[in-house]
Amino acid sequence: MSEKRSTLDKVMEVSLRRGLVFPTAEIYGGFAGVYDFGPIGSFLRENLINFWLNYFVKTEVDPPVYLVSGGTVLPFDVLKASGHVDHFVDPVVECPECKTEFRADHVIEDATGQFVEGLDEQELTRIIRENNIRCPNCDSELADVTIFNLMLATKVGGGKGKVAFLRPETAQIMFLDFKRTATSMRAKLPFGIAQVGSSYRNEISPRKGLIRLREFEQMEIEMFVDPVTLNDQPNFAEIEKVKIRLLTREGQDKEPQEIIEITADEAVKQNILPNQYFAYYLAKETVWYTRCGIPRDKFRFRHMKPEETPHYSGGNWDLEIELPRGEKAQIVEIVGNAYRQAYDLGNHAKHSGEDLSIDQDGEKLIAHVVEPSFGVDRSIHCILEHCFREKGIDRDWIWFKFPNVIAPISVEIFPLMRKDGMPETAKQIYTTLKKAGFNAIYDQAGSIGRRYARADEIGCPYCCTIDYTTLDDNTVTIRDRDTMKQVRVPTIELIDVLRQLLEEKIEFEEAGQPV
Amino acid sequence: MSEKRSTLDKVMEVSLRRGLVFPTAEIYGGFAGVYDFGPIGSFLRENLINFWLNYFVKTEVDPPVYLVSGGTVLPFDVLKASGHVDHFVDPVVECPECKTEFRADHVIEDATGQFVEGLDEQELTRIIRENNIRCPNCDSELADVTIFNLMLATKVGGGKGKVAFLRPETAQIMFLDFKRTATSMRAKLPFGIAQVGSSYRNEISPRKGLIRLREFEQMEIEMFVDPVTLNDQPNFAEIEKVKIRLLTREGQDKEPQEIIEITADEAVKQNILPNQYFAYYLAKETVWYTRCGIPRDKFRFRHMKPEETPHYSGGNWDLEIELPRGEKAQIVEIVGNAYRQAYDLGNHAKHSGEDLSIDQDGEKLIAHVVEPSFGVDRSIHCILEHCFREKGIDRDWIWFKFPNVIAPISVEIFPLMRKDGMPETAKQIYTTLKKAGFNAIYDQAGSIGRRYARADEIGCPYCCTIDYTTLDDNTVTIRDRDTMKQVRVPTIELIDVLRQLLEEKIEFEEAGQPV
Repeated sequence: MSEKRSTLDKVMEVSLRRGLVFPTAEIYGGFAGVYDFGPIGSFLRENLINFWLNYFVKTEVDPPVYLVSGGTVLPFDVLKASGHVDHFVDPVVECPECKTEFRADHVIEDATGQFVEGLDEQELTRIIRENNIRCPNCDSELADVTIFNLMLATKVGGGKGKVAFLRPETAQIMFLDFKRTATSMRAKLPFGIAQVGSSYRNEISPRKGLIRLREFEQMEIEMFVDPVTLNDQPNFAEIEKVKIRLLTREGQDKEPQEIIEITADEAVKQNILPNQYFAYYLAKETVWYTRCGIPRDKFRFRHMKPEETPHYSGGNWDLEIELPRGEKAQIVEIVGNAYRQAYDLGNHAKHSGEDLSIDQDGEKLIAHVVEPSFGVDRSIHCILEHCFREKGIDRDWIWFKFPNVIAPISVEIFPLMRKDGMPETAKQIYTTLKKAGFNAIYDQAGSIGRRYARADEIGCPYCCTIDYTTLDDNTVTIRDRDTMKQVRVPTIELIDVLRQLLEEKIEFEEAGQPV
Repeated sequence: MSEKRSTLDKVMEVSLRRGLVFPTAEIYGGFAGVYDFGPIGSFLRENLINFWLNYFVKTEVDPPVYLVSGGTVLPFDVLKASGHVDHFVDPVVECPECKTEFRADHVIEDATGQFVEGLDEQELTRIIRENNIRCPNCDSELADVTIFNLMLATKVGGGKGKVAFLRPETAQIMFLDFKRTATSMRAKLPFGIAQVGSSYRNEISPRKGLIRLREFEQMEIEMFVDPVTLNDQPNFAEIEKVKIRLLTREGQDKEPQEIIEITADEAVKQNILPNQYFAYYLAKETVWYTRCGIPRDKFRFRHMKPEETPHYSGGNWDLEIELPRGEKAQIVEIVGNAYRQAYDLGNHAKHSGEDLSIDQDGEKLIAHVVEPSFGVDRSIHCILEHCFREKGIDRDWIWFKFPNVIAPISVEIFPLMRKDGMPETAKQIYTTLKKAGFNAIYDQAGSIGRRYARADEIGCPYCCTIDYTTLDDNTVTIRDRDTMKQVRVPTIELIDVLRQLLEEKIEFEEAGQPV
């Protein structure tokens, strides 16, 4: 094969060409670490968020999960109290010659394979000197390591203004709104507060694609629990037999690393995971990402090492997804799962002077927090790479095998020919589908084969063709993206059949008469 | 009546107490001009946005409207080119004594009634001196007027970073993405690009409620049109007979002001509105805001005066809503409608060096832009005030008469008593409704009367009670918020009946047997 480009390159090329993702301000040369979702990508993003909301938030009855939507600009005091002003930093090293800046830990890890997370600037500088690590760009001697706060700062108000920050995570809003939510919803523990929204980090070196962005979107839940009930998650029985893939600390130290598969139930019983609330989310994430099109064997939960874990943590396990990168897979952290104990509410109570305890059966207590924090853009990136299908395997064009629930376009409508009333009939069907809520595209340009290829290229699961037979007997063909098979169904049943197909209530073969 | 508080105060009180809107970082004393939507408010916001998307974007077939979602942090060059760096400014005047800052134009308008928009800082200072206008706060002499840029600035990247801005409007993204959208969607003129998202303005004096925020949300469409077809809007016939309330420039000069009512069709024919594309949106906005619960006689479109209008404008008409404020109504601008001609694409083409013309029937041209720009938070504020119902008129509690399509909670479920299996049956129905996609609340606390009152207070249109009869014959009562009447329906039909009620496909009296 003469094809040398990576999956990443191919995915980014089709993303740009077909309206999935564009660099922000591309006509001005782009803006590193900030992306726009185009007409196709914004449907993918919307479907993913709605799927998450339906699976993790809106259908959760006991405990309930309340959705909020908060400010993205936060005052200094909040982020001072949360520790972000002092501790949300990266070590940076500049090359005095070529003026390039690098993450000091990355430079060291790339040069020595040494894992240096948690070391301070003096220690990092010493390692650079001892190993004679030089600029990866121009091979000059590097400057000393300095510390760089990752928050984007601004000033709000008249005159010189007051320092404020773009929030580095959505979570703080849920802690700030905890009391108002509890009182306004008359909520007792346990209950959750969820949010979907933007966060901002001034990353030193944003990478290709949607993996390390300066503006990114998170879907987060803070589940507030009475600590004595942490092993009484009311719905635990629903997921206790789900097998979770875990990379424990011991497993990480082995060569090669060893992943264990264990049920949620056993992981709690054996004290591998901290509690049922925590294990509940790991099980649900396993099911959800599989439904999003990530193969089960391509992700696992990694127990963070002690030096990666804050002092108040009762357990941190990241969901990590493997991306194909030739011989060595790239590992991307997609969800952070943290048992944060009483840290957040206790800390904000102390700094704000507000009583953030909750009256639970006559006793006042500070709720413990179990937090799953999902990256929207990273999830989309991984879905794009894992759903991508090379050309030449089963067809002569690239395509995306998006699961129906997130596919940005559900159905495309084609008139076989641009004559004899076919375009008019096709447009009428297309209009009806749009008004009925389908994300649909009408396409009459080029041969039917080219139109199927274009639909496959944006992962559209079903295409309907209006042909001469339609004009005779009011039936249309539906073509299945994955198998490229076709069935013929009466036009009057089309909406119902498409709904059942999209919700996977029927198999494609059951949808109509084979063509 | 001893009740002295304004509608605004009462609405803000219930918003805070019932989870509609909270000040951001309230436990730290709040953060002027930034608000969080609580568990109830975030559903109201979500419903409003979805209603807008369905009415203005997703069901539009010809011309199509493509949805994008872009970065909120934009590089300097973009906002320099758009004119925001130089011209997006407010005149500010400080009191040297009490250190309060004021919008200079507001201080002058309040003191003299004089309309001074568009005057420069020297002219404003002269007016303040000539009229001896003093500090509204402490009556000291004011300083000279200065000019203040309204964008929130930040620095992005390593070292000292590069200046960037939080976008002051969503619109720039659609101009930046114009070319990629056209090519990736194989689009010809006319087509629209829409976006829903946050924008930021460093307002000098944010006001109470959601009217003048520093962080706010917009719903915008940029409709790109070949200028020779501006009077051939393909769907114009659908809305041409909608009557629009217009406050023309002549009408504004009369005492009292005179609003005319005219069909969209006549407004174009008489050259009152610039073209069919423009009038199309004014008609649709009229229908949409009426469906959102704003009485038709409480809003009108005002033709901006020449000094309020940029030089490139082909017509600017703001949708303004009247809010009750005792004797003198407050007027709030909710939607800006602008015929921006070729300004935006021409300007970005010039500054970026990119060819932003489009090939239309063999001719290259710069598309003209018709832009309706909606404020989400302002719309919500006006809906809250206009749907608010005082206590004592038809019931002894306050309530919101939200239209079903935007009501944050659609149905509440009550067991009549906390015994004899009623809570279990009620919870089962509640769970089924949640899983079926309803925004529902379960409430078993206090008397049925109190529970109805609580449901009314957040504008929930329907309440279902599970009583002794339910246990006998599997029927439940549904109570209608507006009329407080009740019907009894079989439990098995409940989901279907609620859907029909919520979509206003049946009258309440048709829903079941009267109780």
